[in-house]
Amino acid sequence: MTDRDREGAIVTAQTLTSESLNSVLTAAAAAKPVLAAQSPQQRYGQLTAVADGLDAAAEELVPVAMAESHLPEARLRGELRRTTMQLRLFAEEAREGRFLDVRIDVPDPDFGSGPRPDIRRMRRPIGVVLNFAASNFPFAFSVAGGDTASALGAGCPVIVKAHEGHPELSARTAEIVHSALTGAGAPAGTFDIIYGREIGVAALSDDRVDAATFTGSVRGGLALADIAARRARPIPFYGELGSINPVVVTPAAIAARGADIAQGFVDSFTLGSGQFCTKPGLVFLPAGHGLDDVLATAAAGKPAGELLTEAITAGFAARLADLVGSLGGRLLAESRLIDGNPSPGLLVIDYPTFEQHRNNAMTEVFGPFAIIVEYRDASEIASAIEQLEGSLTLTIQAEESDSALVGSLLSSIEQKAGRILVNDWPTGVSVTPAQHHGGPYPSTTNPLHTAVGTAAIERFLRPVTYQNFYGPWLPEPLRDDNPWNVPQNRSDAGQSQHWGRR
Amino acid sequence: MTDRDREGAIVTAQTLTSESLNSVLTAAAAAKPVLAAQSPQQRYGQLTAVADGLDAAAEELVPVAMAESHLPEARLRGELRRTTMQLRLFAEEAREGRFLDVRIDVPDPDFGSGPRPDIRRMRRPIGVVLNFAASNFPFAFSVAGGDTASALGAGCPVIVKAHEGHPELSARTAEIVHSALTGAGAPAGTFDIIYGREIGVAALSDDRVDAATFTGSVRGGLALADIAARRARPIPFYGELGSINPVVVTPAAIAARGADIAQGFVDSFTLGSGQFCTKPGLVFLPAGHGLDDVLATAAAGKPAGELLTEAITAGFAARLADLVGSLGGRLLAESRLIDGNPSPGLLVIDYPTFEQHRNNAMTEVFGPFAIIVEYRDASEIASAIEQLEGSLTLTIQAEESDSALVGSLLSSIEQKAGRILVNDWPTGVSVTPAQHHGGPYPSTTNPLHTAVGTAAIERFLRPVTYQNFYGPWLPEPLRDDNPWNVPQNRSDAGQSQHWGRR
Repeated sequence: MTDRDREGAIVTAQTLTSESLNSVLTAAAAAKPVLAAQSPQQRYGQLTAVADGLDAAAEELVPVAMAESHLPEARLRGELRRTTMQLRLFAEEAREGRFLDVRIDVPDPDFGSGPRPDIRRMRRPIGVVLNFAASNFPFAFSVAGGDTASALGAGCPVIVKAHEGHPELSARTAEIVHSALTGAGAPAGTFDIIYGREIGVAALSDDRVDAATFTGSVRGGLALADIAARRARPIPFYGELGSINPVVVTPAAIAARGADIAQGFVDSFTLGSGQFCTKPGLVFLPAGHGLDDVLATAAAGKPAGELLTEAITAGFAARLADLVGSLGGRLLAESRLIDGNPSPGLLVIDYPTFEQHRNNAMTEVFGPFAIIVEYRDASEIASAIEQLEGSLTLTIQAEESDSALVGSLLSSIEQKAGRILVNDWPTGVSVTPAQHHGGPYPSTTNPLHTAVGTAAIERFLRPVTYQNFYGPWLPEPLRDDNPWNVPQNRSDAGQSQHWGRR
Repeated sequence: MTDRDREGAIVTAQTLTSESLNSVLTAAAAAKPVLAAQSPQQRYGQLTAVADGLDAAAEELVPVAMAESHLPEARLRGELRRTTMQLRLFAEEAREGRFLDVRIDVPDPDFGSGPRPDIRRMRRPIGVVLNFAASNFPFAFSVAGGDTASALGAGCPVIVKAHEGHPELSARTAEIVHSALTGAGAPAGTFDIIYGREIGVAALSDDRVDAATFTGSVRGGLALADIAARRARPIPFYGELGSINPVVVTPAAIAARGADIAQGFVDSFTLGSGQFCTKPGLVFLPAGHGLDDVLATAAAGKPAGELLTEAITAGFAARLADLVGSLGGRLLAESRLIDGNPSPGLLVIDYPTFEQHRNNAMTEVFGPFAIIVEYRDASEIASAIEQLEGSLTLTIQAEESDSALVGSLLSSIEQKAGRILVNDWPTGVSVTPAQHHGGPYPSTTNPLHTAVGTAAIERFLRPVTYQNFYGPWLPEPLRDDNPWNVPQNRSDAGQSQHWGRR
């Protein structure tokens, strides 16, 4: 084990003593005010440097990722590209400064019950962010992934708790991130990595940590959320947990393009061996859809794939045995272990079985498996949607002629998912301003926030209002001369009669 | 006890059976989709009707409030005016629709690794909001106060758990709100009121409630936050708890206007008998300030005032006895019960005593009492700020010549408060876009949000993204023809290279 030296060099060992953790936390806390005071241009330079460093190391990193995650090369190359694009996206966000949400209320002596003072508000970095990395995206949601990029973009020091599924990749990625940040002028303590579950829990419990993110299981996420809430000083915790991502197919859609829907569904639920958080795991088809053969053939056409870890493979097999045993139904494809790797599984149940076993049927199975529920009429599909738990996504396969049916379901659907798709599949998630990768519990622990897209930065910012300041004492974004040229929203005197004093 | 009838008439009794609670919750849940589909103009009309109804009832309501809260008439008339202004503010917010934060990413077939789909995002109402009303603002933070106004503005049904301190005012206010909403076309279940701690806890635990607000003690808030987090489906909980609202006075400010500062401080901490959440309860003065006589005279000039409830008076007296006994120091004003009402108390301690007893000294005392800490040099004041817990506000009294000193403290101050004031007092809180009435724990349970100002509406909205929808199936704010004329932010094709797929 290499201990952390006093210059803040990265810890490359896969374990870490409590003493080392203490120095990581102290350095991160010390970096807070330095990062908070940085200009948009400085932050842009640092995030861009990280993206450049990772792009330059692709030939080294991808083989390590392949060996540790068992994911195919093309997928990992694409994922690394997406990761550096995401870093550049948050670099641009940081440079533009729109997320600061600057609001300036100029003084108004003529307001109703007394003069309105000079009040200026902006969002400030929340502080040290602890990021529990995910297993299923070793680049895009791990050490330098979306949570890290958005927290750095917000101006927060980041400590990543490495996922045990890819320790070598984590360490090497962290070295590159650390070196790029240091080279671009970021202070010591801006970024570090820690290893091991106990060390992660110790960090989450420490007063020097101000917010945390997590991507993983419901059980693990709730346990960490509980720690975050019960600390002496509770902190925001953003957990992305389990999501079943239901799909509703109308009879008209089956009639118009049933075979295409069947193939699209199988392509989506087996993508990445079913290890995507947006995998459609529960599909509602009208009874009598006549697609058994198409579905079985499509599933049989998908090879067995190695899962991320042996523990995931074992968990998948055990859960499947339990599910199929409990639910009965008919298997259109039976998942088998081929050279230790599972082939896709597809189970069909009727609506009464779903109602009877809905908690079990709605719980995400991590891996290449999905359940089809056959509904008999519109009232059954409406009732099914009412009974669903929250998901990241909910997909509707329907024709334009289904307007009345879809219209009757939509308000219920909106309460169940963060993203609603029509005639598309949920496993692609663009990183754009309008993206929302979040949703009601259990898909996340906080439905107001997203883990993907530019709005992800909002998780790590808290508003601060400055009242009656001398101009030069204000942070740059709030000054009248706006030296950083960030967007400012001004409420001038006399614009509104609506105010008061508390 | 009058039971709730099937038309949704208001419950006027001060207790409520579980069966009645069930019907309240069922009606609120049924109102969700109806309210979510309302146009901005409809919502504007309903909130304005509530404001009009309360304004028209001022002559009836103010005497009831005086009898129950023991607050003076002028204060209560002003507070009711502020309350209806606040309702009108959120009416305007609802009509304008900026808070919907509409984002439209148009399809872009030429994006990096694949075509970007049509993605549109807006904020939707989170659902049924349960509002635990405050005692200290019987209008502005009770039945029709800021939490109710902002939740209705967001399009959420509201259930108020009445504060036991003013039950008659609560019931009468609720009748007026209910009647105004019904008259303006709001669906049954849009608003209701419940009574009693056990019923409140039962409601918070119920799956039909989607978010909750609370204003009150740290202990009470944490207990409710825990219930919200440990339900089968955890929900967002916004608690405004305890805040000490520190004041830092520099030697230069004392030299320039010491007597004015002393008087301003006494005016602020005794306002409303010290029952404001922004009361400055802890003031750091440079040792040798020479203001003992001015402070003592100013405090002696403030009459004893009746507190909100007898329980608060008893708690105040007990806490003070304990504090003064533990901390020692010298009393510039000793709080006495005069006809059962406490006069202001003011205790001076030195810096070592503060360090030794800081948890006790930093804990809010609800009522007319404050602590002065005498610091000897810049290092002591810097160290004191580092040790502070989070507050709603932190005030600096300083001269322009203090730039270097204030500059050295500001990054630390920013981490401790939601609003920072220079040469002003915290007990006035304007309701404006730039206001932030929130702060780090224990002042609130979630430092990202505010309870006052237009941004308060954000607590009750969750983003939903619509992907690849047929145009007519989209909610009105997301349609290309923008029938409600709300602000839309569009990302056109080719604007950015930064995106990816998950």
